[in-house]
Amino acid sequence: MKILILNGPNLNLIGTREKDIYGKDSFNNFLTNLKVKYHNVEIDYFQSNVEGEIIDKLQETGFSYDGIILNAGGYTHTSVAIRDAIAAITSPVIEVHISNIMSREEFRHTSLIAAKCKGSIMGFGLDSYRLGIEALLSQDL
Amino acid sequence: MKILILNGPNLNLIGTREKDIYGKDSFNNFLTNLKVKYHNVEIDYFQSNVEGEIIDKLQETGFSYDGIILNAGGYTHTSVAIRDAIAAITSPVIEVHISNIMSREEFRHTSLIAAKCKGSIMGFGLDSYRLGIEALLSQDL
Amino acid sequence: MKILILNGPNLNLIGTREKDIYGKDSFNNFLTNLKVKYHNVEIDYFQSNVEGEIIDKLQETGFSYDGIILNAGGYTHTSVAIRDAIAAITSPVIEVHISNIMSREEFRHTSLIAAKCKGSIMGFGLDSYRLGIEALLSQDL
Amino acid sequence: MKILILNGPNLNLIGTREKDIYGKDSFNNFLTNLKVKYHNVEIDYFQSNVEGEIIDKLQETGFSYDGIILNAGGYTHTSVAIRDAIAAITSPVIEVHISNIMSREEFRHTSLIAAKCKGSIMGFGLDSYRLGIEALLSQDL
Amino acid sequence: MKILILNGPNLNLIGTREKDIYGKDSFNNFLTNLKVKYHNVEIDYFQSNVEGEIIDKLQETGFSYDGIILNAGGYTHTSVAIRDAIAAITSPVIEVHISNIMSREEFRHTSLIAAKCKGSIMGFGLDSYRLGIEALLSQDL
Amino acid sequence: MKILILNGPNLNLIGTREKDIYGKDSFNNFLTNLKVKYHNVEIDYFQSNVEGEIIDKLQETGFSYDGIILNAGGYTHTSVAIRDAIAAITSPVIEVHISNIMSREEFRHTSLIAAKCKGSIMGFGLDSYRLGIEALLSQDL
Amino acid sequence: MKILILNGPNLNLIGTREKDIYGKDSFNNFLTNLKVKYHNVEIDYFQSNVEGEIIDKLQETGFSYDGIILNAGGYTHTSVAIRDAIAAITSPVIEVHISNIMSREEFRHTSLIAAKCKGSIMGFGLDSYRLGIEALLSQDL
Amino acid sequence: MKILILNGPNLNLIGTREKDIYGKDSFNNFLTNLKVKYHNVEIDYFQSNVEGEIIDKLQETGFSYDGIILNAGGYTHTSVAIRDAIAAITSPVIEVHISNIMSREEFRHTSLIAAKCKGSIMGFGLDSYRLGIEALLSQDL
Amino acid sequence: MKILILNGPNLNLIGTREKDIYGKDSFNNFLTNLKVKYHNVEIDYFQSNVEGEIIDKLQETGFSYDGIILNAGGYTHTSVAIRDAIAAITSPVIEVHISNIMSREEFRHTSLIAAKCKGSIMGFGLDSYRLGIEALLSQDL
Amino acid sequence: MKILILNGPNLNLIGTREKDIYGKDSFNNFLTNLKVKYHNVEIDYFQSNVEGEIIDKLQETGFSYDGIILNAGGYTHTSVAIRDAIAAITSPVIEVHISNIMSREEFRHTSLIAAKCKGSIMGFGLDSYRLGIEALLSQDL
Amino acid sequence: MKILILNGPNLNLIGTREKDIYGKDSFNNFLTNLKVKYHNVEIDYFQSNVEGEIIDKLQETGFSYDGIILNAGGYTHTSVAIRDAIAAITSPVIEVHISNIMSREEFRHTSLIAAKCKGSIMGFGLDSYRLGIEALLSQDL
Amino acid sequence: MKILILNGPNLNLIGTREKDIYGKDSFNNFLTNLKVKYHNVEIDYFQSNVEGEIIDKLQETGFSYDGIILNAGGYTHTSVAIRDAIAAITSPVIEVHISNIMSREEFRHTSLIAAKCKGSIMGFGLDSYRLGIEALLSQDL
Repeated sequence: MKILILNGPNLNLIGTREKDIYGKDSFNNFLTNLKVKYHNVEIDYFQSNVEGEIIDKLQETGFSYDGIILNAGGYTHTSVAIRDAIAAITSPVIEVHISNIMSREEFRHTSLIAAKCKGSIMGFGLDSYRLGIEALLSQDL
Repeated sequence: MKILILNGPNLNLIGTREKDIYGKDSFNNFLTNLKVKYHNVEIDYFQSNVEGEIIDKLQETGFSYDGIILNAGGYTHTSVAIRDAIAAITSPVIEVHISNIMSREEFRHTSLIAAKCKGSIMGFGLDSYRLGIEALLSQDL
Repeated sequence: MKILILNGPNLNLIGTREKDIYGKDSFNNFLTNLKVKYHNVEIDYFQSNVEGEIIDKLQETGFSYDGIILNAGGYTHTSVAIRDAIAAITSPVIEVHISNIMSREEFRHTSLIAAKCKGSIMGFGLDSYRLGIEALLSQDL
Repeated sequence: MKILILNGPNLNLIGTREKDIYGKDSFNNFLTNLKVKYHNVEIDYFQSNVEGEIIDKLQETGFSYDGIILNAGGYTHTSVAIRDAIAAITSPVIEVHISNIMSREEFRHTSLIAAKCKGSIMGFGLDSYRLGIEALLSQDL
Repeated sequence: MKILILNGPNLNLIGTREKDIYGKDSFNNFLTNLKVKYHNVEIDYFQSNVEGEIIDKLQETGFSYDGIILNAGGYTHTSVAIRDAIAAITSPVIEVHISNIMSREEFRHTSLIAAKCKGSIMGFGLDSYRLGIEALLSQDL
Repeated sequence: MKILILNGPNLNLIGTREKDIYGKDSFNNFLTNLKVKYHNVEIDYFQSNVEGEIIDKLQETGFSYDGIILNAGGYTHTSVAIRDAIAAITSPVIEVHISNIMSREEFRHTSLIAAKCKGSIMGFGLDSYRLGIEALLSQDL
Repeated sequence: MKILILNGPNLNLIGTREKDIYGKDSFNNFLTNLKVKYHNVEIDYFQSNVEGEIIDKLQETGFSYDGIILNAGGYTHTSVAIRDAIAAITSPVIEVHISNIMSREEFRHTSLIAAKCKGSIMGFGLDSYRLGIEALLSQDL
Repeated sequence: MKILILNGPNLNLIGTREKDIYGKDSFNNFLTNLKVKYHNVEIDYFQSNVEGEIIDKLQETGFSYDGIILNAGGYTHTSVAIRDAIAAITSPVIEVHISNIMSREEFRHTSLIAAKCKGSIMGFGLDSYRLGIEALLSQDL
Repeated sequence: MKILILNGPNLNLIGTREKDIYGKDSFNNFLTNLKVKYHNVEIDYFQSNVEGEIIDKLQETGFSYDGIILNAGGYTHTSVAIRDAIAAITSPVIEVHISNIMSREEFRHTSLIAAKCKGSIMGFGLDSYRLGIEALLSQDL
Repeated sequence: MKILILNGPNLNLIGTREKDIYGKDSFNNFLTNLKVKYHNVEIDYFQSNVEGEIIDKLQETGFSYDGIILNAGGYTHTSVAIRDAIAAITSPVIEVHISNIMSREEFRHTSLIAAKCKGSIMGFGLDSYRLGIEALLSQDL
Repeated sequence: MKILILNGPNLNLIGTREKDIYGKDSFNNFLTNLKVKYHNVEIDYFQSNVEGEIIDKLQETGFSYDGIILNAGGYTHTSVAIRDAIAAITSPVIEVHISNIMSREEFRHTSLIAAKCKGSIMGFGLDSYRLGIEALLSQDL
Repeated sequence: MKILILNGPNLNLIGTREKDIYGKDSFNNFLTNLKVKYHNVEIDYFQSNVEGEIIDKLQETGFSYDGIILNAGGYTHTSVAIRDAIAAITSPVIEVHISNIMSREEFRHTSLIAAKCKGSIMGFGLDSYRLGIEALLSQDL
C-alpha cells in the first residue's frame, strides 16, 4: 500500500508557527514515528507553498497511489484549481486539518475541496494525519 | 475507558433509508462488531429523534464519560441548543457524519456544532464512527 | 386506503389561536366531518409540539400508510431533521398549510420540507387538508 | 359557476416538453376530461407566452369570473406586474404548478405572485389543476 | 412642445384598483383636465400591459418627442429591457409613480430604470404626472 | 398574581456551565430567594431541554397565568414554533437572557421570539429574571 | 402658505462643489428667484451640516408649517433619526435631490427617509426644489 | 447614588409623537414621579438630537456617575461613535427602548450599541426606564 | 442547413443606439454580408421587443431548425420564461452578445439563459453572430 | 500572425479527466490538427498549473503576440492577479472554456477575468479554442 | 505649509480610553512633540464628537490648507456626509487610524471615506499621524 | 537595520502597466533613490508573480529581518495562504499599495492580509513604500 501525505502552504513551519493553534511538535519527528507505526504502508511526503505544485503532485501520484492525505492549508478555502485536480484523479483523497477550522475565522469555515474528497478529518492535531491513514486502511466491521 | 455513541434523528433507519447515501449495513451489526474490536472500551449507545433528548443525554454523560461520538444528523445544521450543551459539558465530543455533507445540499455545509467539538470526521460511511473512537484513543507518536 | 393527518406545533390550538389567520373552527369538528365525507378512507390523526415525535410518527407510519398529510407548522421553516425523515420513508407526504404562508413574515416563505414532499397545498383554510386527501386519491382524467 | 384556467409561457408544450418534469400527457386531452368531470362548471381556457397578455386576460375576466386557476410558468418567479394584476382584480386566483418547484433550481423557490393568490397547489402533475377547481368549489365540512 | 405619457401594466385600472393606494379618480378625467391646463403642450397617451409594447413605444417616440413621462408600473423593478430602451433613445424620460414606492413592499424599493431617466417623481398621486410635465417645462430661475 | 418562569435548554446547568458567561450561582438558590422577596406572587418554575415541551408548557399556562418569564436559551435564535406558541397564547411573555447575547456569536444577535413578547431584558445575570417580575408588576408612575 | 426649505450637509457648497454633479449655480441666487416667482408663499430656508440640527428644525417647524422641502444630502442614506423626526411631525415633508441618486454609487440608491415623506423628487438640478413647491401647491385637476 | 437618564433624538416628543408606538404620557411627568419613587437616587436628565452631544454627555458623566440609562433612539441602529463612547467610559450603561424594536422595521432589529452596554431592556413603555434603575440597583438574592 | 438569428429587445436599434457599446454598423448591412459569406446556410432573422414573441419564435423554430443564435438583450438577465423555452426545444441554441457583458453593470453579469444554451459567445461586436454560425458548423479537427 | 494558446490548471489532463465534462479527445491531437487548419497562423502553446507562471507567460507574450487564447481553468473564478496581468498587457486576450460553466457549480458562474478580456467563448468543447482563433482573425463583413 | 489634524469622536480620550487598543500616551503630548519635529509646518488641531462640526471644519479649511489628516473615528464606517465633504473640498485629505481597523469588528472593515481620500494609513499607533504628515511632504525620489 | 521590500504579481510592470493607476516611474529607479536616501538601512528587494514564492520569501526572511514591506498586488484580496505566512513569522509586515484600492473595483476593497500586518499604507503612489520604511523606523515623539 502506497500513500502520499501532501502538505500545503506554511505547514513546513509546524512546530515553529502559532504553537497555540498548530502544536509545538515538529512534523518531521511525527512523520518518522508514523512510518514506524505503519511500517507496512509506504508513506511518501511532499510539501509546497505553491498552489500549482500541489496540483502537479496530485496529478503525478493521483493515478497510482492508494490514497492521498491532503492538508491544503490556506488553499483549502480558496482553490478551485486544487478541487479540480482532486476531481480529475482516481486515487481517494482525504482532507485533514490540524486545527478545528470551524472554530477559527469565518472564511475558514468553507472548504472548496471537501466536496471532491472521500472524507474529511479535522481538529485532532497531528493525529488527524494518522486518522487519515486509518481511514484509508478502513476496516470493514 | 467509557465512550458514548450518540445518534440523532433518522439515524435509527441506517441500512433502511437512502442506501445510496448512508449505505446498506444496519447500525446494530456494525455496533456489535465495533464492541468486539474495541473490547477494552466500554461503548454505550443512544439514539433519539428528539433534539432535547440528545441534550439530556449529553448532560447526563458529559461530565463522566471519556468521550462522546456524536452524529447529530439534521440537527447538525440548525441546533444552537445542542452546540450549547456540548460547550457546557467537559467530556470531549467528536462530530461524525456517515456521508460527506459538503457534497450534498448547501444547507448541509454549515455545522453549528463543529466549533464546540474537539474535532470532526465525515464521509467514511460507518467507519467514521470507528475513526472517532481511534481519535479518542489518540496515540502520541 | 389508510392515511395519516399529522399536525405539528400549535396546531392543537386551531379554532382558539389567532382566529384571523387560522379560522375559528375547531379541528376536531372538521376531522369528524372529513371522516364522514371520506368514509372509504381510513384517516388517522396525530398532533405533537415535539419535532422528534413528528419524526417518530413519520418513521412509524411512513413504510405502510398510503399517504401522509403533514402540516409541520413552525418546523416547516427550520427542520432539516423532518425533511430527512420524509426523504427516508416511502409513503408519499403532502405538505399543507391553513394560511397562505407567502403573505406572512418573510421567514415563512421558505419551506425546508417541500422539496421532499410529493406536493404542497396552502392557503385554503382547513380545506387544505381535504384537498390533500383529494390529491392522494388523485383521479386520472 | 365560471372558471378560467390560465396558462403562462411554454405550457402550450405540455406533453411535448421535458416529459420527465411535466409528464407526457397533452393538456388538451386533460382539459376535455376535466370539463366532462366538472360538467356543472363552465371552464374557459387561455394560454399565452406574453406576460402582458396574461395581465390583459386577468383584467378581462377578473371582475366577473368565479375563480381563476393560474399557472404563470416562468413568470411566477419574476413578474411584479402579474402580481399587481392579481391584487387589482376581485376574482380569487389560485396558483398551480405541475412540478414541485421547491425541488428544482433555487430561483424557482420564490413565487412573486403567491402572496396575492388565495392559495397555492403544486407538485401533483396535471392533477394540480383539478385540485384548483376543487379548491374553488371548496366544501364546508 | 410634444410629450408622451406612457403607462405600464395595470395602470389602465386606475380609479378601479386598490383605491387606497392609487386613489379613486379615473385616469381619463385626469388626462382631459391635464390637457386643458397645459393646452400649449401636445400630450399623447399610451398604455400597455406588454413590456415589449412599452419598448416599441419608447423607440417610436423617443427620437422626436420633447419628453416622455413614464410610469412603468410593475416593470419598474424588473425590466432591464425598458432600461435599455430609455438609454437608447434621445428624448428625456421622467419616471413617475402615483404611490410612494419606498413605503410599500421591499422589492418595490429598487428601480431598474431610474438610473437612465432624467429624474424621478413619486408619491403625489396623479399629480406626479403633472409635476413630470412641470419638470419638462423646467423654468430657469 | 401567578407567574411562570420557563427555562429552555441547558439552563438547568446554570452555576455549573461556562461560569464566565452564566455566573457561578445555582438557579435553585436564586429561585428560593426570589420567592421570598416576591412572596405575594405565586412563582412556578419549569425547565426543559425539549423545544416541544416548552411549547406544551406555554400552551398549558398561557391562558391563565398573569405572565411568563421565558429564557428560551438556544431556541431563542432558531424556533419559529416557540414564537408561534407565544403569539397563540394570551398571557404576556417576557424574554430574558442572563448574558448579553449581542456581545456573543453573531447567530445569537437574532431573536425569533422577541417580536411576539411584551418586552425583553438581557445582560443582567440572574437579576434579569427579577427584572422580568418587576416588569410584570409594572407600576404606573 | 408657509414653507421651509431644509438643506442638509454640504449643500451650502452648491455652486462651488462637484459642479458636474450639482451644477454651477449658487443656491442663494436660486432662492431669491424662487421667492419672486412664488411670492404668495412664505419660504423659509435653513441649512446645517449637523444631523441633530436638522432634526431640531424639523421638530420646530413640523407642527405649524404647511410643508417642508428636505434635501437631507448624505444623511438621506444613513439617518434613522431624521426618518423618525419626519414620522413624528405633522407637516408634509417632500424629499428632493439635485442629482439622480440612482445613477451614482450604490449606497446612494437607498433612502431611509423616503418611506416617511409624502413623496420624492430627484434629478432635476435646482429645479427639484421648485417642483417640491409645486407639489405642495398641488392642484386638483 | 447618581444616575443619568440620557435620551437621544426625537425622544423630547414623547407623549406628542406617534402615540400608538410611544404612548401618550409626557416624559416630564414620568420623570417627576420617578424621582419621587427613587428619592434616594440622584437622577439627572439630558436629551439631545445631536449624536455628538450624546457622546459629549457620555464622556462627561461616564467616569463619575454610578450608571447611565441610555435610549439612543434612531442612533441605536447606526452609531458606531456612540458605541465607542460607551466602550471608552467606565460607568455601566443600560440600553432601554420604550417600544419593542424587534416588532418594528427590520433595520431596527440591529443595535450597534448593545454589545458595549451592561444590558438591554425594551418594550415596556416608559417603565423600561424604571426597570433600568432597578437593574442599576440590582439586588443580590 | 437552416439557422435562425433571433434578436431581443432594442437590438433593432443597432447602429443607432449607444454606439460606443454596440458599434456604429447597422445590423441589416451585416446580415446581408453574412448571408453572402455563408451562402450554403439558410439564415432566417427575427427581432422582437416582446419577451413572449421571442418564446413563440423559439417554439416555432426550435423543433426543426439546425440551430438558433440568440441575443436576448436585456431579457438575458431576467427571463426564466425564455430559459424554459430553450430547455423545451430540441434545436441547439447559442447565446451571443455584442458587448462584453461582464465589463458592464453588475446586473448584466448574470445570464439566466446560458445554462440551457449549448454555449455562449460575447464581446466580439457583430462578429459574435458570425462566430455563432461557425460554432454551429463546428468542424471536428 | 502569432497566437498563444494558454491553458491553466488541470487542462493538461484533457482527454483523461472527467470525460463527460471535458470530452475524451486529447489536447495534443487537437492542437496538431488546429495548426494544420490554420497553417498561416503561428500557434504557440503553454500550459501550467501554477497561477504565477500563467502570469509570467501573459507578461512575456502580451506585448508582442497578436492574441492570446486563455483557458484559465479553476483560476478563472478566483484570480485577481491573472485579471491584473490581462489588464496590464496590450495583446487582446480571449477567454475560452470547454464546458458551459454556467450549467455547473454556482462558484463557476463568476469569471474574474472576463471583464478584462476582449471576449469570451464557452461550451463548445475543444472547438471553443478554434472559435477563439476565428475571433482573432475576425472578418469585417 | 499649513496642515490640519482633524480628530473625530472619542479621540479626545486617547490615553484614557481602551489603552490596549489606542495606547496610553495622551494626544496633547504627542501633538506638542510633533510640532517641534515638524517646525516648518504649521499644524492646526481640531477635535469634535459632532459629525456636522467635522464637516464644518473640512469646509472651512478645505479650500486653503495644504492638507488635512483626518481620523474620523467611528464616523469612518457610517458617514456619507463626511465622504461628501471630502469630495467637495480641494485640499488633499489623508485618512489615518491609530489601530489596525481590519483586525477589529467586521463593521470596522469598511471605510466610507477612504475612496475620496488621497490615501490611508492605519495601525501604527499615534505614529500614523506623523506618517500622514510625511505623506503630505511626500518626497519625489 | 535590514528590510525586505516584497512585491507581488504584476508589480514588475510598474511604469509600463496602466500608467493612470500605477504611475509612469519605473520601480528600479525608485528603488535606487530609496536606497540612497535610507543609506543606513539595508534594503533587499524581491518580486514574484507566484503566490507560493511570496510565501517562501516571507518564511525565509520573516524570522531575521527587521521588517517587511509587502505589496501583495492581486493576492491581497484572495490569499489566505499569504495571510497565514504573515501570521506565522515574527518580523513585522507592513501592507502597502500604490493606488487607493478603496476607490477601485469592489472586490479590491477587502484585504485578507491586513488583519495580520502591523499596519497598512495605501494611495500614495511609490511613496507608499517610503512611508512603509518610515513606519518601520517609527520615531517615538
